[in-house]
Amino acid sequence: MRNLRLLIAYDGTNYLGWQRQKQGPTIQGILEDTLRQILGHKVKLRAAGRTDAGVHALGQVAHFHTTSKRDLETLFRALNALLPKDIAVLRVEEVDFKFHAQHHALRKTYFYQIYNHPVRHPLLRLYSWWVPEPLDLEAMKACLPHIIGERDFASFRKSGTDLKSTVRTVYEAAFKRVPGVAHLLRFEITGRGFMRYMVRNIVGALVEVGRGRLGPEDFLKILEARDRSVAPPPAPPQGLFLKEVYYGKKWRAKDYAPKGVKR
Amino acid sequence: MRNLRLLIAYDGTNYLGWQRQKQGPTIQGILEDTLRQILGHKVKLRAAGRTDAGVHALGQVAHFHTTSKRDLETLFRALNALLPKDIAVLRVEEVDFKFHAQHHALRKTYFYQIYNHPVRHPLLRLYSWWVPEPLDLEAMKACLPHIIGERDFASFRKSGTDLKSTVRTVYEAAFKRVPGVAHLLRFEITGRGFMRYMVRNIVGALVEVGRGRLGPEDFLKILEARDRSVAPPPAPPQGLFLKEVYYGKKWRAKDYAPKGVKR
Repeated sequence: MRNLRLLIAYDGTNYLGWQRQKQGPTIQGILEDTLRQILGHKVKLRAAGRTDAGVHALGQVAHFHTTSKRDLETLFRALNALLPKDIAVLRVEEVDFKFHAQHHALRKTYFYQIYNHPVRHPLLRLYSWWVPEPLDLEAMKACLPHIIGERDFASFRKSGTDLKSTVRTVYEAAFKRVPGVAHLLRFEITGRGFMRYMVRNIVGALVEVGRGRLGPEDFLKILEARDRSVAPPPAPPQGLFLKEVYYGKKWRAKDYAPKGVKR
Repeated sequence: MRNLRLLIAYDGTNYLGWQRQKQGPTIQGILEDTLRQILGHKVKLRAAGRTDAGVHALGQVAHFHTTSKRDLETLFRALNALLPKDIAVLRVEEVDFKFHAQHHALRKTYFYQIYNHPVRHPLLRLYSWWVPEPLDLEAMKACLPHIIGERDFASFRKSGTDLKSTVRTVYEAAFKRVPGVAHLLRFEITGRGFMRYMVRNIVGALVEVGRGRLGPEDFLKILEARDRSVAPPPAPPQGLFLKEVYYGKKWRAKDYAPKGVKR
């Protein structure tokens, strides 16, 4: 039995998210079905983090167990040949049998794109949140120290979810202008792990600060209230990208394919 | 009677190109129908240049005549409210009645995006040409002096087209790496005017040089042959963007909307 790890990129536009569902196509569903077709047995994929409908990924990671002895290069080529064009496998690796894509993730980085211009951008509509009102970027940046470190993010959890703990650790958070694309802002956040909707809820509140409807002090009050009902609605899914998952040196690949491809 | 000029951006993915057709949706068709709905009379739009199916635009320009006295701000808002999300009007201007979007264009700039990596990019598939083989960028750049200036581009016209002249003037042409997006190359070209398929045919030949199947000296021979049949096939449409059309000071707007929006 081998434990294989996939590095995956996808355009979430046409999917109901990562997790397999009966109602329609999902990333997990398509990947598991394609792996089954190649390997000849049922496959259960475990992802670093589930992404919601419409959310994209540049560096999702998932692992699965297989009895197949198929070489990694062949598996890599077969996957990319059979997968739809909006899903690609960037790397196939063999890892220690104990490796678990979700449990062993040390850091995850997401970014969220905001197109801030009075007129919508036809070519960014599926990859950003269009905010036509002018945003006060300095006020938004002033909120960021409040979310760095180990905090109770109860106010930014998904409505109606019941979790053992709403404490999470954020290592870094920053706003940048995307070079070469006028009016496109990118919010990048790295943490140990995130609750469902957490990044989108943080961005939803930050944009209210940017619009001037809330001040940075209100943002802090919302965080400290530990109450989802006081926070603004989440930012829409199409602006969100899972950029990278980091596992540390312990879980380095034993072998990988293709040899010529680096991230 | 007024002469109005539109600055237009669109995602060409879901259209059969600019020019109105009976077989399916086109940018011209959608815009004319929307204008007719707003203005209450039939409208004939003239574009700076027709784009083919799948080709995108960030700065297409078109003009039309109208008897309507509707103010430009209202027209601008109504257009963007009614147009599908993959077409946006960035500016509505009133110009001299003699202005013609095609005849008075002094310069047009197109760019063409190539994603050069062994694995395809799910999020760039509709906005670039995926070339998996390593490209020799220096060899491609070595071809560019041959296309600068007034040249006979007969070898790069669309197959089967009959034109009075195949001589065109190219002012600038350059390859760049797109900042912030690994493995994405951009070929940008500015000229007085271009034949149909000319940019895509040039890119098709340049990529053959990049792949090492042709040398820069073969590129020159192809150009000098003035024969379409000796040139490689065109690059696919989804990598091509009409970036900008320049008219000079003579055709400045008399009035425009919205006031707050600059390109």
